[in-house]
Amino acid sequence: MTERGLLIVFSGPSGVGKGTVRKEIFESSDNKFEYSVSMTTRPQRPGEVDGVDYFFRTREEFEELIRQGQMLEYAEYVGNYYGTPLTYVNETLDKGIDVFLEIEVQGALQVKQKVPDGVFIFLTPPDLEELKDRLVGRGTDSEEVIRQRIERAKEEIALMREYDYAVVNDHVPLAAERVKRIIEAEHYRVDRVIGRYDEMIREQVTAR
Amino acid sequence: MTERGLLIVFSGPSGVGKGTVRKEIFESSDNKFEYSVSMTTRPQRPGEVDGVDYFFRTREEFEELIRQGQMLEYAEYVGNYYGTPLTYVNETLDKGIDVFLEIEVQGALQVKQKVPDGVFIFLTPPDLEELKDRLVGRGTDSEEVIRQRIERAKEEIALMREYDYAVVNDHVPLAAERVKRIIEAEHYRVDRVIGRYDEMIREQVTAR
Repeated sequence: MTERGLLIVFSGPSGVGKGTVRKEIFESSDNKFEYSVSMTTRPQRPGEVDGVDYFFRTREEFEELIRQGQMLEYAEYVGNYYGTPLTYVNETLDKGIDVFLEIEVQGALQVKQKVPDGVFIFLTPPDLEELKDRLVGRGTDSEEVIRQRIERAKEEIALMREYDYAVVNDHVPLAAERVKRIIEAEHYRVDRVIGRYDEMIREQVTAR
Repeated sequence: MTERGLLIVFSGPSGVGKGTVRKEIFESSDNKFEYSVSMTTRPQRPGEVDGVDYFFRTREEFEELIRQGQMLEYAEYVGNYYGTPLTYVNETLDKGIDVFLEIEVQGALQVKQKVPDGVFIFLTPPDLEELKDRLVGRGTDSEEVIRQRIERAKEEIALMREYDYAVVNDHVPLAAERVKRIIEAEHYRVDRVIGRYDEMIREQVTAR
């Protein structure tokens, strides 16, 4: 029987740089996990590609998938839906391949309810001032949206306790490397690998 | 306040190669933890140095330390005591430095009772046949001692469940690298670092 892949949930407050760190992780050739592209109803930004950065869908299409139970998690955030389609995740995990989700905090907590043995990694800003600078500097949102994001980010940092790991995004390549090491280490956890040793342990029992 | 160091407990069945992997880990320049030299009453083997490989002590000296409560853990194994003096471990952890113990399985389970938030890593043989070959190949012990060790090893593998991580010793440099990654990843666990974020989280609460 193939060992099931790990579900890796990478999250953190808005503006912390989740997307940048995720891209850095996937640019290196030695990663063995697959990225689950999220679905959103927010407008496509310049340079973003449908099916690569997100699946861009209408509210009607998104709400239909929710009704059909086809979303592993979803959240409405600053007026837009974000979510993870379920089918791809399950099929990939069943093949024994790790799946990497980069999602918002609300969504991550939903996944934790459904998949408690996932690996929950929280990306943190070095401090709140830097986070504010990044949200302003991105220049894609109105002042009101930025204010909402900062308030939300503060609330989200308080939810770090619900995660397994916290990684500081002080330097993108370092943060990416830390995440990769966490994922590798998780593969050595006894509760994940104990099945492989059943035979050796049985041999012990019958030999006495 | 200095964050306390991690207590890393590296263990596994007799003959699995704990000492070889531990030496490989400590030969690399990038490790930041300190090795806690164990104490034993077993005879010094050729090439072993007192205070480096072990502190070699008499039974009387060892039993006096046990009576004084100066051992973090100890075990009697194939007629000899093995144990970890307490003072060095506590002083080093208090300085914020990780301490690395390479100890027998019996002892590791004692440490788990006393220090449940330690990091417990179990080194496993690829299979039992290879373990037998290694025990015979070492050539330092009588046939009866080897037979005892194999029986003990089988029982010890069944105790893997009590550990946090299992690392296969298929290739020494690989096994050493895995252990180092586990230790690094453990430093990112939320329950270990949450204290650093208290201020950011408080700022969130008072700002509302």
